[in-house]
Formats: sequence, C-alpha cells, structure tokens
Amino acid sequence: MAEKSLCLLGSTGSIGTNTLDVVARHPGRFRVHALAAHGSVEALAEQIERYRPRLAVLYDEEAAERLRARRPGNGATAIRAGMEGLLEAVGAPEVDQVVSGMVGAIGLRPTYAAIEGGKQVAIANKETLVLAGELMVSKAAETGSRLLPMDSEHNAVFQCLAGQIGNGSGPAPGAGAAPRGNGRAGLERIVLTASGGPFRDWPLERFGEITLDQALAHPNWKMGPKITIDSATMMNKGLEVIEARWLFGLPPSRIRVLIHRQSIVHSLVEFTDGSVIAQLGLPDMRTPIAYCLGYPERLALDLPRLNLAEVGRLDFEDVSPDKYGCLYLALEALELGGGAPAALNGANEAVVGAYLKGAFAFAEIHRILSRVMGRLRGALAPRRDGGAPSWLGAVRSVDDAIAADRWGRDCAATEMP
Amino acid sequence: MAEKSLCLLGSTGSIGTNTLDVVARHPGRFRVHALAAHGSVEALAEQIERYRPRLAVLYDEEAAERLRARRPGNGATAIRAGMEGLLEAVGAPEVDQVVSGMVGAIGLRPTYAAIEGGKQVAIANKETLVLAGELMVSKAAETGSRLLPMDSEHNAVFQCLAGQIGNGSGPAPGAGAAPRGNGRAGLERIVLTASGGPFRDWPLERFGEITLDQALAHPNWKMGPKITIDSATMMNKGLEVIEARWLFGLPPSRIRVLIHRQSIVHSLVEFTDGSVIAQLGLPDMRTPIAYCLGYPERLALDLPRLNLAEVGRLDFEDVSPDKYGCLYLALEALELGGGAPAALNGANEAVVGAYLKGAFAFAEIHRILSRVMGRLRGALAPRRDGGAPSWLGAVRSVDDAIAADRWGRDCAATEMP
Repeated sequence: MAEKSLCLLGSTGSIGTNTLDVVARHPGRFRVHALAAHGSVEALAEQIERYRPRLAVLYDEEAAERLRARRPGNGATAIRAGMEGLLEAVGAPEVDQVVSGMVGAIGLRPTYAAIEGGKQVAIANKETLVLAGELMVSKAAETGSRLLPMDSEHNAVFQCLAGQIGNGSGPAPGAGAAPRGNGRAGLERIVLTASGGPFRDWPLERFGEITLDQALAHPNWKMGPKITIDSATMMNKGLEVIEARWLFGLPPSRIRVLIHRQSIVHSLVEFTDGSVIAQLGLPDMRTPIAYCLGYPERLALDLPRLNLAEVGRLDFEDVSPDKYGCLYLALEALELGGGAPAALNGANEAVVGAYLKGAFAFAEIHRILSRVMGRLRGALAPRRDGGAPSWLGAVRSVDDAIAADRWGRDCAATEMP
Repeated sequence: MAEKSLCLLGSTGSIGTNTLDVVARHPGRFRVHALAAHGSVEALAEQIERYRPRLAVLYDEEAAERLRARRPGNGATAIRAGMEGLLEAVGAPEVDQVVSGMVGAIGLRPTYAAIEGGKQVAIANKETLVLAGELMVSKAAETGSRLLPMDSEHNAVFQCLAGQIGNGSGPAPGAGAAPRGNGRAGLERIVLTASGGPFRDWPLERFGEITLDQALAHPNWKMGPKITIDSATMMNKGLEVIEARWLFGLPPSRIRVLIHRQSIVHSLVEFTDGSVIAQLGLPDMRTPIAYCLGYPERLALDLPRLNLAEVGRLDFEDVSPDKYGCLYLALEALELGGGAPAALNGANEAVVGAYLKGAFAFAEIHRILSRVMGRLRGALAPRRDGGAPSWLGAVRSVDDAIAADRWGRDCAATEMP
C-alpha cells in the first residue's frame, strides 16, 4: 500500500489520540499531513513534535496564538486558526483521508468540505450523519468520496458487509462487476447492539432514584460523560440508528437494536438467506480505527485478542421501550425526517449538559425530550400558512443543519425546569 | 444470474434432497443436468419425474437396471450405472457446478474428475478433503476449479471471508486487484465451533456407562448415526479441521476448535487487527447449500430467521482433551501428513461401524483408534529399509487415498476386540 496522507480533525481527543497510536504502530504506512484540535495547546504541541505535520490548526484563535508562540517542531509546521484553518487542513490536495473526530457541530463544515473534495472520510463524529446525513451521503455520491464508519457499531456492520458500503459512493475499490457473498445484495437487516448501560437490570420503578454517579458508571466502555449518559438513556443508540440509515442506505424499518450486555458482538447483519454475520472483538477503539485507516486493507494490531472461552457467554435481549424511551424518540425523529434528528440531537445535548450539572433527575431527561419532540411534531405538521422553517422540513446545507440543531437547543431550554 | 447447470452426486441423501429443495425455491435459476445416487431406485425415480435431468446415474448396476425398467420421466432421461456413469455425469460440458454429496470413498473419483474439468465443486462429502485434500486443492489450483464448502462450519468460514477462499483457486470472481476488508489478507486464525455432542456435560468418570442410545441423541442437529457418533467423540470436528486446512490453505496451528453448545455460531474467523467475524444462523443445511448454489450471489430463502433475543445466550468453552481424545488423534494425523488422515478416517469408519452394531462400549472407540494411530506412527517413522508404502507418505492419486483408507480399515480390524 502506498503511504496514505492523513488529516486528523480532533487530534487531541479520544479518537485522535487512538488514531495516532495506530499510525505510530505502522511506520511508513501513513504520513500525518495535518492535525487539528479545538483548543488544547499543550497536547497539540506534543503531537507536532512527534508527528511533524505540515499543518496544525486550533479552532480557538487565542489558543492558536499561544501555540504559534511555542514554535513546536522548530517552526516547520504551519499553524492556522479558526474555521478557515480547518478548511485549509481538509482541503490540501495531498490529503487522502480525513478523520472526522471533532466533537460537536464544529466538525460539520470541514467534514462536508472533505466530502466535497472527494476524500476518503472516516466518520467518528456523530454530528456529521445525525445532523446532515442525507446531505453528506448525497454529496459523497456526487464526488466519489468514500465514507468509512469509525465507531465500533457501524464499523462492525461495515466489516460484516466486507467493506461494501451503501452510502451512494459506489462499490469498494477492487470490487468488480459481479456481486460478492457479503455485499449489499442480499442484505436484509442491520442489528446494532447496545450494552443497555448501567440500568439494564434496574427495575423501572427505581429509575427515579438514579444518581448522577450511577449514570456515569458505564459497565463496558470508558467514554466521556456526555456519551455515557446517552448510553444510559440509549439516546446514543438512537443516534446510531440514524447514522446507520444514511451510512448503509437502509430504511429505518430494516435497522434493529438488540441489547447485548458484554459489548463483545459489536453489531450484526442479516442476509436474505437466513445467514447472520457478526463482528466481535474486545472493546478497543483502535480496531475500528485501524480498519478505516488501512481500508481497503486490514492493518495488523498487536493488541490483546478476544478469547471467547474466557468470556464464556454472550447474552442478548430485546430493548424495553419503557426503560429506554430516548431510543424511540430518536427513531421518531428519523421518521419525521428533515431537520428533526438535528433538532432532537441539539435538544439532547442541552438537556444532558444541564443534567451533568445536576439540574434535574435522570428520569427527567426523557420527559423533557418528549416535550421537545411534541413541539417538533407540531412545528412539522402541515399548516396552511407554510408552517415550519424550511430547514426543519429539509436540511439542504450545513447551515440548515446547524439552524435545526439550534432550534432544538432553544426549544429544550424553554422545556427544562 | 444466468441459469446454472447442476450435477448432484448423492441426490437422494440429505445433502441432495436439501439441494433440490433450494433449487425448487428458485425457478429459472438452476437446471438439473444430472442426478446421481448409490442405489435408491424409488427416490431417484421420483426426482427424475420432478426435475427432468438429462442424465441419471445409480452406482449400483442392478439398481440402475431396475430404474431403467421403470422408464421414469417417460424415458427422456438417460440412465447410467457404475463409476463410469458418475464420471459421465460430472464430465458433461454443460455442467457448471457439481454438488459432491455422495457418502464414502465412492465420491472421491467423480469429485476429482469435476475438479480436473475446472467446474465449481460444492464439497459436502467429507472424504474429498480428508482423504485427498492436498491432491484436490493442488489440482483445483491447476484447472481453476473453485471448491465451495457446503457443510455448515466451513461454509461459515467461507462467508466470514466474504467468499474469498484460499484453496489455490485464485480470487473470487468480481474481486479486483486490490485486497478487500475481509479477504484472506489479514486472516489470523479460523475457529470451528463444535456443539460438544451429548456428553459435553458428563463427568469423564461416567464415560464408561454411555449407552448407544445416549451416544445417538445429538442435542442440536439431526444427522445419520455415523456422523452423530463422530460428533459425540469429536472425531467429526477433527476431520473438519483437516478439511479446513486444505480449503483455506492454513497451517493446522492456525485452526482452533471451540465448544459452543447452542450451534448458532457456525464458525468464526480472527483477523490480525483483533477483529473476529462470525457467521450465525439457525441450524438448517439449506442456508450453506444456497450459499454455494448461488455463489457468488446470495439466494433468498424463506426460512425461519434467527432471533438472538429469543435464543438469549450463546456459550463458549475450550475443548477438554480428556473427553474428546478423538479430536486430537485427527490433529495428529494431519500433522503426520500424507495418507495418515485417510488411514485414520478409514479406521474410524470401521470402528464406528462396529460400535453401531454393539460390538463394544463407547469409550473403546478412542482406545482402538489410539492403537491404530500408534501403528500409523510406526509405519510412517523413517526406516532404513524404505519403510511404509508410498501412499502412506504422500497421496499422489485417488488410488493412493483409497489405499491409505483401506490400510486404516484393515489396521482397525486387527485392533478391535
């Protein structure tokens, strides 16, 4: 494989540092062209020393100034700031693959630019497909950009489909005219697994007593607080269904969620002949990251291996709608379409943010978001006067997606106690 | 897909009737060119009426005569007999795929002829690869014949590799130059699952009490008595390791066996990045059969679907060498190489045959076969006088394989009480 040139959006976060770990394990396979982060001066300076990118970007202008003053890598790395800097990083013609790992809506515009530029784009930021899935996927079909799913569930589906992806970007390189055994042809359903979070075994009657510390204690994965709460409410899985809908081009009715407490089976794919293909592994982000970086080749990784005899058993159960109401809010938003998923995601961000500050009890998260969904339904209902703002009806640009997200945040603010 | 023309060896057996069931579910996709069986006049006559093949063969000459007298299909089907008939059936230029489902060594020669003819060969008969794996695979590499594994474990591995197969027959049709996500590149290990048979939970001390009826009660699959006993001793899994070694071109050290009592995960493949891909499904032979018949396309099958939430749990455990000594005899035979697997298989046939007639206790099967292996080791040890017959050292023809099998049967006869 020729050396692949990378641009990392969110290089100092969890995805970014794990990506660089994989890069460091494969000398000669990758060149780090650009590193971009939000505002972590210290961490980015260290990464510059080690990986010597041509370009480094901090979104925060003032932080970029401080970074510049340190002259990391003896000044051989150009340092840029702001959205302009991010767009310069993804737009460089040398870049083969952009890793979109920036948290929040900031990542949306540079990710879209990478797709417009026809790059391979490893999607690790949720917002890209939740806020603007249809837009991203149709642009990718237009430019030939390939969207590679980097989070563990979607990457599992991608692996089960043997690297074929139905996001409109055409067949995988190397795939000829004839369909293959595990391709999209014959795909019946995708099953995303969910750990069920810390409350899967709690009786519903006791959900009122849940403390913040309990909600933050995820049984299987170590993640940031926001996504840990989303995992406990299963909003996270709802957002993943939305992503899968666009990544794999399937109607929502053909995407299911299954509780699998051990988080060993990362997801499954059902075919029309009754065969089910599953991807399994120890929970380690570096495996899906390596799959995307190496694509269409697999990179070897010297990590602890899954030993199923040691694991002993794998459990599966259906999702209880009563415990995990947030999943169903997300499915409803996907059904409503247009800007509804973006609005719900914005509202959820606001509500979980407030919850993490101790503003209300765990069970309130779902109640508040249910009210937001009620207002969203109202806003999207057909009305004589033309009704809802157009971006609630259809997301035609990144600005539309951000406006819908904003609408959700504002709506949540008025619904929170 | 163009209509595929089939030749079924063993059409009246379990593989044959399930294959015809799949064919009947896909009108217009397949033409049944030839049907061949051992001696079932009645059953073959019915199949001729229904599928109107150009050719029908009964290996048993006298049975063929009786079939001819019935003029099934109003005489439009040519009826042949003996090995000559089988070779005529597989050799017809119209035949695209041969399903090798004949039980025993009889199937060896016509299967080899199909490979010599460069056909697609769906392998459902164990003898082909256990008795003469290296020979078959190297001939396939020469002629471009594609070997498609039809039994559930190997078919699962084949599916996990997304239809890529490392038996020397080159890349799958439709695979371009670039390697793909789930190909042979990056393959680390194959894990064949085994149900553990009826005695997986029995304490070893009680193995002396096992009755024939208990040994014949397989917990998951309904199969013939011989293979049910092989499943209880795990000789069956040992023979499958031998088949996998040739089908997938892996050294024995990279093939493992794992007990999985529910028989839902049919096998797994481990990659060098820590990813594990598994194929799951309800135990139904029609799924792997359809995968081979349709290859490289998947055929839809309207069969009950796997519901993992209903199954609830999947268990895995390591194999106990004490309980399943026969597995290790097979691994040793594979290590010895040459005609050793054929000899062990022949011996096992003879021993299990005698066991099924009540000649001795269950635990004797392993003891007798251990003695056979001891003699095999002796016969294969380097000696001054040139030593063992050449076919024990290397199987260079179908005759060699059959001679080694014969050696095993004869050796077993002298070791049985």
